Amino acid sequence: MFSGAQFSLYPMTSDFVPAIMGGIAALDTYKDRLRRETDDVSTLLVGPPDVVVDAMRDAFIATARSGHHVVLSATLSRGCPGESDDPICTAPSIPRLAPGDDPVQAALRRYDPNPVSGIACSGQISLYPLGTEAHMARIGSCIDFLKHVGVYDKPKHFCSKLRGDAGALFSAVACSYLDFAPPEAHVVLTLTVSANSPSRF
Amino acid sequence: MFSGAQFSLYPMTSDFVPAIMGGIAALDTYKDRLRRETDDVSTLLVGPPDVVVDAMRDAFIATARSGHHVVLSATLSRGCPGESDDPICTAPSIPRLAPGDDPVQAALRRYDPNPVSGIACSGQISLYPLGTEAHMARIGSCIDFLKHVGVYDKPKHFCSKLRGDAGALFSAVACSYLDFAPPEAHVVLTLTVSANSPSRF
Repeated sequence: MFSGAQFSLYPMTSDFVPAIMGGIAALDTYKDRLRRETDDVSTLLVGPPDVVVDAMRDAFIATARSGHHVVLSATLSRGCPGESDDPICTAPSIPRLAPGDDPVQAALRRYDPNPVSGIACSGQISLYPLGTEAHMARIGSCIDFLKHVGVYDKPKHFCSKLRGDAGALFSAVACSYLDFAPPEAHVVLTLTVSANSPSRF
Repeated sequence: MFSGAQFSLYPMTSDFVPAIMGGIAALDTYKDRLRRETDDVSTLLVGPPDVVVDAMRDAFIATARSGHHVVLSATLSRGCPGESDDPICTAPSIPRLAPGDDPVQAALRRYDPNPVSGIACSGQISLYPLGTEAHMARIGSCIDFLKHVGVYDKPKHFCSKLRGDAGALFSAVACSYLDFAPPEAHVVLTLTVSANSPSRF
């Protein structure tokens, strides 16, 4: 299987270059587990889906600790049939449900809101199970899960709005991405996370 | 049908609030054709799919004319079966192909790179035809179209990288979004457009 993400950091400061580079530097911790490549629009991460989410969380938190208003925007993808298998993407962590098992309950058993970061965030996510006519049922189960774990803010058109500590929010993203489609499925999740915004809703 | 977008403007300047508000003000031209709502994470536009793309283009160009490095990030959606029909979204412009018609040739006949904005951009897009097992074929046709119209830069994992004037780039986005799935299909397109970046690739 092939799995990874394209993500970007947008620090709303005139001194944005060192702010972005500081966030990217936080990825060094993952250099043995992720391949990465940055161009003028985004940074590619290739590796196991859960590690990809952890790495983006750490890059976001490192950038947000500056106090600047910062947004992370990401597209996560796993199982795309147009990509070749890559050994670095081995993902034993994607659960396969037993027949009759409830995906929401299974995700709740796996969800862990730690580590707490101290960074308060707003975010929104959309889940796209591809290549199946059952996509709306899977999206519905994912929204049920989000409503249970304390980071759900409100429904919006085309996405779910989240709110909470960056640790809990990215943990909920990982479960949303991993737990609502089989290991071999083609799944995309898009994510926006914002910290230190002067706007409050 | 229901159609619209969630989009955000990220001006990388410490004076980001007036820069964002200037971009949002460019939407006033569309106030009779689009419903809109802004919160701390994104701006919702609801209306015909082609008008939604034009409005985001104008908001992006207005923000980029400041000279600041600015990024627009957007999720466009049409035909979601979870949304109620809305009269404002009437979309006579989505073409229905005759049997045997080539979607790439049909899109090329409709593509118009104007108006030229004078704003040079990098961008990337991903098309997600949902609720169908034929999604990869539709994505492949869309990529063939992009390669013909002069804004295709290179393939990237999970997206296609584009380059060109904002006018041509958003026109290519509109065709990608409208021309590669039937009018009633559930289609999502995600878009990132960047101008005035200090990075060059």
